[in-house]
Amino acid sequence: MESSKNFDMRNGRNLTMLVDFYELTMGNGYFESDIGNKISYFDMFFRSIPDNGGYCIMAGVQQIIEYLSNLSFSEDDIRYLRGKKQFSEEFLNYLKNFKFSCDVWAVPEGTPVFPGEPIITVKGPAIQAQFLETMILLNINHQTLIATKANRICRAAGKRPVMEFGSRRAQGPDAAMYGARAAVIGGCSSTACTIADQMFGIPAVGTMAHSWIQLFPSEYEAFKAWAKVYPNNCVLLIDTYNVLKSGLPNAIRIFKEFLIPGGYKPKGIRIDSGDITYLTRKCRKILDEAGLPEVKIVISNSLDEFVIRDVLSQGACIDSFGVGERLITAKSEPVFGGVYKLSAVEDDGGNIVPKIKISENEEKITNPGFKKVYRIYSKNEDKAIADLVTLRDENLDADKPLEIFDPVFTWKKKKIKDYYAKELLVKIFDKGRLVYKNPDVSAIKKVVGEETSKLWPETLRLENPHRYYVDLSKNLWDLKQHLLGKYSDTYDG
Amino acid sequence: MESSKNFDMRNGRNLTMLVDFYELTMGNGYFESDIGNKISYFDMFFRSIPDNGGYCIMAGVQQIIEYLSNLSFSEDDIRYLRGKKQFSEEFLNYLKNFKFSCDVWAVPEGTPVFPGEPIITVKGPAIQAQFLETMILLNINHQTLIATKANRICRAAGKRPVMEFGSRRAQGPDAAMYGARAAVIGGCSSTACTIADQMFGIPAVGTMAHSWIQLFPSEYEAFKAWAKVYPNNCVLLIDTYNVLKSGLPNAIRIFKEFLIPGGYKPKGIRIDSGDITYLTRKCRKILDEAGLPEVKIVISNSLDEFVIRDVLSQGACIDSFGVGERLITAKSEPVFGGVYKLSAVEDDGGNIVPKIKISENEEKITNPGFKKVYRIYSKNEDKAIADLVTLRDENLDADKPLEIFDPVFTWKKKKIKDYYAKELLVKIFDKGRLVYKNPDVSAIKKVVGEETSKLWPETLRLENPHRYYVDLSKNLWDLKQHLLGKYSDTYDG
Repeated sequence: MESSKNFDMRNGRNLTMLVDFYELTMGNGYFESDIGNKISYFDMFFRSIPDNGGYCIMAGVQQIIEYLSNLSFSEDDIRYLRGKKQFSEEFLNYLKNFKFSCDVWAVPEGTPVFPGEPIITVKGPAIQAQFLETMILLNINHQTLIATKANRICRAAGKRPVMEFGSRRAQGPDAAMYGARAAVIGGCSSTACTIADQMFGIPAVGTMAHSWIQLFPSEYEAFKAWAKVYPNNCVLLIDTYNVLKSGLPNAIRIFKEFLIPGGYKPKGIRIDSGDITYLTRKCRKILDEAGLPEVKIVISNSLDEFVIRDVLSQGACIDSFGVGERLITAKSEPVFGGVYKLSAVEDDGGNIVPKIKISENEEKITNPGFKKVYRIYSKNEDKAIADLVTLRDENLDADKPLEIFDPVFTWKKKKIKDYYAKELLVKIFDKGRLVYKNPDVSAIKKVVGEETSKLWPETLRLENPHRYYVDLSKNLWDLKQHLLGKYSDTYDG
Repeated sequence: MESSKNFDMRNGRNLTMLVDFYELTMGNGYFESDIGNKISYFDMFFRSIPDNGGYCIMAGVQQIIEYLSNLSFSEDDIRYLRGKKQFSEEFLNYLKNFKFSCDVWAVPEGTPVFPGEPIITVKGPAIQAQFLETMILLNINHQTLIATKANRICRAAGKRPVMEFGSRRAQGPDAAMYGARAAVIGGCSSTACTIADQMFGIPAVGTMAHSWIQLFPSEYEAFKAWAKVYPNNCVLLIDTYNVLKSGLPNAIRIFKEFLIPGGYKPKGIRIDSGDITYLTRKCRKILDEAGLPEVKIVISNSLDEFVIRDVLSQGACIDSFGVGERLITAKSEPVFGGVYKLSAVEDDGGNIVPKIKISENEEKITNPGFKKVYRIYSKNEDKAIADLVTLRDENLDADKPLEIFDPVFTWKKKKIKDYYAKELLVKIFDKGRLVYKNPDVSAIKKVVGEETSKLWPETLRLENPHRYYVDLSKNLWDLKQHLLGKYSDTYDG
């Protein structure tokens, strides 16, 4: 289990106070208004897919588990809050004796997820369920963003390995290490981030920078020194002075004069600047003519899915990619806009009262009630057809045909036979107790492979993918319309 | 001193292994090649300003200080590295007994900095100075990015306070807390990130989310409950149902029927969606007509410097801004491209041998040698005229006129009289010992105000700013040309 390697647990970093201050003012307010223990339901969901892609890859659940497993307020925290002079002693006392007691459901990491469906659901006392908002959003937004971006980049690279190289441009230490984790979940083969290897067991790799070459009297001597220390890991960086006139000839000399006669296998060359297509084609030809077809070509210079697709389409000869800043920050769209919204509260009789957040912007209207999500697969092709969000007490009978319909253009209907369905939300905490064993990164990575293979090629496209349907059950749709009707007078002209 | 509040120190988080793996393979290689102790000089610098701005705001030095003050390898780290089977026992032993012994210079936080000048310089044994690359870049790149973005946003907001609201969309926990720190350095008045207040003493603020309103039977009752608990902090979120038909009338009722008769002052309203200009103008008018001119209007919805400038130019009536995702991720340009390059090594006689990294891309060519940076101010206007990068042993004589010239278009010369000069790089570590007391965030923020007031308005523009000159001294320019000449044959056709 990954948590045994958990860094924050190991070092006991207390992140309880990484919370938007208004969660605390509201918490105190709920407490003072005697609704702190009202059982409330919150959903996390997102509204759009970064880069106009076809799906996202769920990630960050492990860090939610670690956070929730350790949720407590230290003496320091209480003292700090008291100093703010906004919180009652009774509330501070509640925090001091805080006992996490929520139920939490999450879509397992590595699962493709889509706009509009709950990917996390929390049920618990208002004061607690509200408090979790900041860290649930922060962790899932961050890692889902990076896993999704990595998955796009790896799709562009095809079967060629992609190494995550972005630590130095990451937005803080956590962005480097958790970003590396998410990148490997999304499909990267390895990372340059050593601590991510130590923490998550994802392989860290690396050889040399230009400074290695500059610290020796000549490029040739620098390469020779490297080959001597690392005869089995001889990937030479050949663009310090001039790739074709200096770097490559020197590398070939080292491979032929030193490495091969010594009984070692030359491993590769790396190019970090210049015209990738031109240089890799030239290098490949020269290496092949020199009898070194086994030497791999590694590229690393401001890459992303679009550059990779372009250079491969131009016939660049590349065996693997190192991708840095554009992956670790998801540069093309660095915000994943997941939100966390109240969907229901229980009345004094324990009945679930659904809640809706309306908006003039239709996509911002929430789905009310306590819900679950089914993924519907066709039995024949074993492909995912649609996701269906239902109320919690609904059950699918896979023996009967299922009729689904577009929640906006309701005349668009589809009758599905021969399907099987999987519930996406899995319970991870029961009344505050961890009841889920999160898989390790390599197992999560397998989930990504299996589940994306069940998406149609049209959904997998980097650009202009088909929209995957997230439909509402008839009961949920009716409930939503009913609640919208109650507010309709707010919106007349 | 800020470090007394230091979170990582307090919790003993060990970030030593947050390092690109190649720093370790190179370290071991330097060690094995007997050049590990060669005294080397590295500069951090950057090549361009995000968002085509006129300057950047230096930030992140405090986190470098904390990192370097704690740099050591735990038993766990050594065991992990041994398991990689790439490092010699002698090298691992060196790490086990690691004693940081570098000299480090940095431009103080809050100082405006420009492309091409060293903002950090490290002198020390090759093995150590190389190792620092990842964390120096990571911290400075991240916080300088956010401080620079915050400074842009605050400039657009004029004298109106800007609150940092982005934790939930930050790229990991550190991005939230250190991002909040950098945002306040850049000019934000406060943050929603509670832990950033606890750690750095920057004020955390917050009131309510839509869920507060939804958890009560009606908006009116929700507002009333709030006013009861927080009569002195009554900022009401008025867009849950309908701003003009419901939110504002309910808020005014609360202010007039409850708060004012109780002897309290209504504080404000917040709008988080909709047409900002239209709604704030309407709200202002209605509030004023209701005799509530003192009620402030707070806005928070996908803001950045461009949206803020636009709505203000349209006459929106706004008293303060909450800025989230576009600030905390620097969405418009989320990568700060600082690099860390070898600039010199000492030979066996202790002489400094300058090094240059050449490139076909001229802006990627480094400035060789052990250097310092002067900022030249005109005495008459007290404005910064240019920065001058010189070799370390050069001294300016402010009594004599100074001639500076463009390093590319060398005929562009300027003779400066009546100037004073300030050295930008300050020593923070001497042979591994901390010799610098980093100011706290509020003092750093003052530096930003003072130093940006010495920039010309043309440099302060959000768009199309004048380029601020970073020139090289004649000696440094000559040295660079000399070294470039040595490689010129590499570049003939």
